[in-house]
Amino acid sequence: MLELAPYVALAERLAEVSQPIALSYFRGAFAIDTKDDASPVTVADRQCEQAMRALINETFPDHGILGEEFGNENVDAEFVWVLDPIDGTHSFVTGKPLFGTLIALTRHGVPVLGVINMPALNERWVGVSGRKTTFNGRDVTSRALTNLADAWLYATTPDMFAGPDAAAFRALSAGCRRTGYGADCYAYGLLANGTVDVVCEAMLQPYDYCALVPVIDGAGGRVTDWSGSPLTIASDGRVLAAGDARIHEIGLSVLAAHAAHKKNKVAF
Amino acid sequence: MLELAPYVALAERLAEVSQPIALSYFRGAFAIDTKDDASPVTVADRQCEQAMRALINETFPDHGILGEEFGNENVDAEFVWVLDPIDGTHSFVTGKPLFGTLIALTRHGVPVLGVINMPALNERWVGVSGRKTTFNGRDVTSRALTNLADAWLYATTPDMFAGPDAAAFRALSAGCRRTGYGADCYAYGLLANGTVDVVCEAMLQPYDYCALVPVIDGAGGRVTDWSGSPLTIASDGRVLAAGDARIHEIGLSVLAAHAAHKKNKVAF
Repeated sequence: MLELAPYVALAERLAEVSQPIALSYFRGAFAIDTKDDASPVTVADRQCEQAMRALINETFPDHGILGEEFGNENVDAEFVWVLDPIDGTHSFVTGKPLFGTLIALTRHGVPVLGVINMPALNERWVGVSGRKTTFNGRDVTSRALTNLADAWLYATTPDMFAGPDAAAFRALSAGCRRTGYGADCYAYGLLANGTVDVVCEAMLQPYDYCALVPVIDGAGGRVTDWSGSPLTIASDGRVLAAGDARIHEIGLSVLAAHAAHKKNKVAF
Repeated sequence: MLELAPYVALAERLAEVSQPIALSYFRGAFAIDTKDDASPVTVADRQCEQAMRALINETFPDHGILGEEFGNENVDAEFVWVLDPIDGTHSFVTGKPLFGTLIALTRHGVPVLGVINMPALNERWVGVSGRKTTFNGRDVTSRALTNLADAWLYATTPDMFAGPDAAAFRALSAGCRRTGYGADCYAYGLLANGTVDVVCEAMLQPYDYCALVPVIDGAGGRVTDWSGSPLTIASDGRVLAAGDARIHEIGLSVLAAHAAHKKNKVAF
């Protein structure tokens, strides 16, 4: 089995290095930029990613990097780090502490290590292939559940579903106990902790979902694309996560009855 | 002018007394109940309200109380306390720290004192008629803004708007820079802090909105029902808040173009 310890150590350092940078701009004065896709970008976003890239380049110069802000660097390498310096920019910009830093390591495109770091809450999930997921150092387990009608569902916003995907999400939402919005990556962490049952999203980018995979797998949950295939760096951005594989299976069937069968990535 | 200091002191004590009760059940094992209106109720909810009611009865036995869990008590009194022990029950139940305790004092039905207390974040807003609003003891001011297209908007969920109200909210959302969901009472606190510009909601109960009024007014913002009338204990549950009165005026006109002109309260 592959020894991931040195990579876990680096991932934790990346979280530690980026956290004070993010916090120094949170609720402070900063410039809000507008990207082509209309999502806001802050100075904090860029500085966090630059600091993480520098540390990766210094520690593992052979590794590739795919980041939200500065694009691709050697992404044909065996190991590629996938970084989202500030996931939940809307939260960050409006002073809501639910933004997170997502740090993943993929091997041959498959996520093997993921960190969800919440700077303003001082909370951190670490997921490593073949190991139990930890939340602030303690092992966590997702919730066993067999009845979709008892499930607490999250999505960042209903606006992330287009065309037939919107109908698919509405059907899933109608089948669950209650639907909450606005948690971004944090919802997947709560799913690992066993307090959220299902997270269903679309139009995600690899830097939005790669880190979530080892966190959820290592807590006993299940996360795939909407067709049930494992998430890789090349998935189409539609994600279904559940704390219990049986609920995941039910969720997939609800989505399949409505969703379009896209092969291509959706731009967001 | 009415001397509110003894009431402010009690409101702060109510926050202090309820906070450890709420936290003792947060992320722990607790029974989830279902009310007629399908919103979840926890043991924490009830225990918090009972503790607050006891303290009010002991300190000001002549005052009335309107609470989410235990209904009306002497609500024809000059002073009535309006309590929501756990606002954001979805957050609370799913382990998300954005739930709050809302404590308001109304005089002749008009909110004159409001506290938004966030137990898991250890953050507190205090708004008092005629005084500057404080956030963790520091004065705060909402953001000046004249262009709706620059506004950051929040609502708890798009599902809270029914019939023509849904079209009205969609029009407002389309006119704003970005729309975020899932913050409950916290969004109004962030508006007082100047990091959120507009919050638009519907189907709220008096215990959901009374505490927000003095907090927003005292930060320089504006909050009314959708027709522009001041919020009282008898309002119809549709709320528009803005950090800048000019944006509030624009928001009202957008809503008026679409919303139904209801006279009666909406059940939720």
